[in-house]
Amino acid sequence: MTDQPDLAALQRRLADFAAARKWQPFHIPKNLAVALSVEASELLEIFQWLTPEQAAAVMDDEGTAHRVRDEVADILAYLLQFCDVLGIDVLAALAAKIDRNELRFPRPDDPSE
Amino acid sequence: MTDQPDLAALQRRLADFAAARKWQPFHIPKNLAVALSVEASELLEIFQWLTPEQAAAVMDDEGTAHRVRDEVADILAYLLQFCDVLGIDVLAALAAKIDRNELRFPRPDDPSE
Amino acid sequence: MTDQPDLAALQRRLADFAAARKWQPFHIPKNLAVALSVEASELLEIFQWLTPEQAAAVMDDEGTAHRVRDEVADILAYLLQFCDVLGIDVLAALAAKIDRNELRFPRPDDPSE
Amino acid sequence: MTDQPDLAALQRRLADFAAARKWQPFHIPKNLAVALSVEASELLEIFQWLTPEQAAAVMDDEGTAHRVRDEVADILAYLLQFCDVLGIDVLAALAAKIDRNELRFPRPDDPSE
Repeated sequence: MTDQPDLAALQRRLADFAAARKWQPFHIPKNLAVALSVEASELLEIFQWLTPEQAAAVMDDEGTAHRVRDEVADILAYLLQFCDVLGIDVLAALAAKIDRNELRFPRPDDPSE
Repeated sequence: MTDQPDLAALQRRLADFAAARKWQPFHIPKNLAVALSVEASELLEIFQWLTPEQAAAVMDDEGTAHRVRDEVADILAYLLQFCDVLGIDVLAALAAKIDRNELRFPRPDDPSE
Repeated sequence: MTDQPDLAALQRRLADFAAARKWQPFHIPKNLAVALSVEASELLEIFQWLTPEQAAAVMDDEGTAHRVRDEVADILAYLLQFCDVLGIDVLAALAAKIDRNELRFPRPDDPSE
Repeated sequence: MTDQPDLAALQRRLADFAAARKWQPFHIPKNLAVALSVEASELLEIFQWLTPEQAAAVMDDEGTAHRVRDEVADILAYLLQFCDVLGIDVLAALAAKIDRNELRFPRPDDPSE
C-alpha cells in the first residue's frame, strides 16, 4: 500500500542485509567513511569530462541515468550505514545544520516587501 | 508535535534556502556532484590518521562528534539538492538498489533451518 | 648551481621530515591513500563553484594561486610518501602507463602525411 | 641508455599525447582537478575494506600491485597535466611547501645531543 519507502525502513533493510552476510566486521566507521567518499567520486566520474550543459542533460540518456541513480543510491546507503554504526540521526543533523545556515547566511531582504 | 523532520520536507527547505539566496546558478548538477565529493572527503579527513579503534570512538568527544554530524549533514544536503535538480527520487533509487543487491549477493543459508 | 630540486631528493626530504617527527606510525599505506584523496579534494574545492572560464583564470589572483600551489604540493607529497612506504617507483609506473595508453589509444593518422 | 625517465620528460610526453588526440578541450583546469580527485579515489578504493595490516601487504599480490601502480601513475599523470595547463612548477611548489612545514613543525630536539 505504501509505495514510498521511508528513510528509517531503508536504514533497517541495509543493517539486516549487512548482518545476514556477516559484513559488520568490515562496516566499521573508518571503512564506511572511505566507502562513502569512494562512491561520491564514482558519481563525480560520470561528470568529469562533460561541459556544464552536457552535465545538466545527464538524465536524458537512459544508460547514464541508470548509472547516476545507482551511484546516488550507493552514496545514501553508505551514509545511512555510517550514521547507523555511530548512532547519528542524519535527519536531525541536517535540520540542525539548516537552522545554523539560516543564521550564518541571513535571508536577503525581499525587495517586494 | 512531530519532532522528526522528513526527507521531503528537508529537501524543500534546502531548495527554498538556495532560491532565496539566488544560488541556483551555482547549484548545477556538475557543481553539486563536485560539492558532494568534497564534503564526503571532509568527513573522511576526520578519520585519516585514526586507528580503526580510535575511529570507532569518534562520537565520545563532543567537539569531534559535532564535526562528524556537521559533515554528515552537508553530505545529505548536497545529495538532496543534486537529486532535486536532476529529478531523482533518492529513496526509490536506494530501494531499487537494495532489491538488486539482494539478487546479486544472495542471503547465505540460515544454518538454524 | 642546480636550483631545481629533483623528485628523488624531495622524496628523501619528506621521509626524513616524517622520521624526525616520529610520524611513521601514522604514515601507513591505508592512511596515506586516505590523505592523498583528501588533499586532492582540497584542490578540487577551490574550483567547485567556478565556471570553466573562472577556473582557467585561477592563477591570476595571487591568493588563490598560492592555495592552488599549496594543494598541488600536498598531493605530490602524499603521493611520494605513499610510493616510498610501498616501494613503488612512481616515475617508472607513469612511463609504463603512458606506454600502455599509446597502445590503447592509437595516435590518429596525421592528415598531413 | 637513460633508464630513469625524468618528470619533465614525462610531462612533455603527456602533453604530446593529449595534443595528438585533440583532448585539450577536455583537459581544462576544472576537469583535470576533478579527474585527479577521481583517480585518487580509485587508488583509495583498493584499500577500503582492508585492515591496516592487509593494506601494508598490498604489493605482495601481483594483480593488486599492478592496480596500485596503475592508479599511482594516473594520479601523477593528471597532477602533471593540471600543473602544465596552469603553468605551475610542481617540484618548486613541493620544495617551498617542505620549507614552510619545517618552520611550522620544528624538528624536535635530538636527545642524543
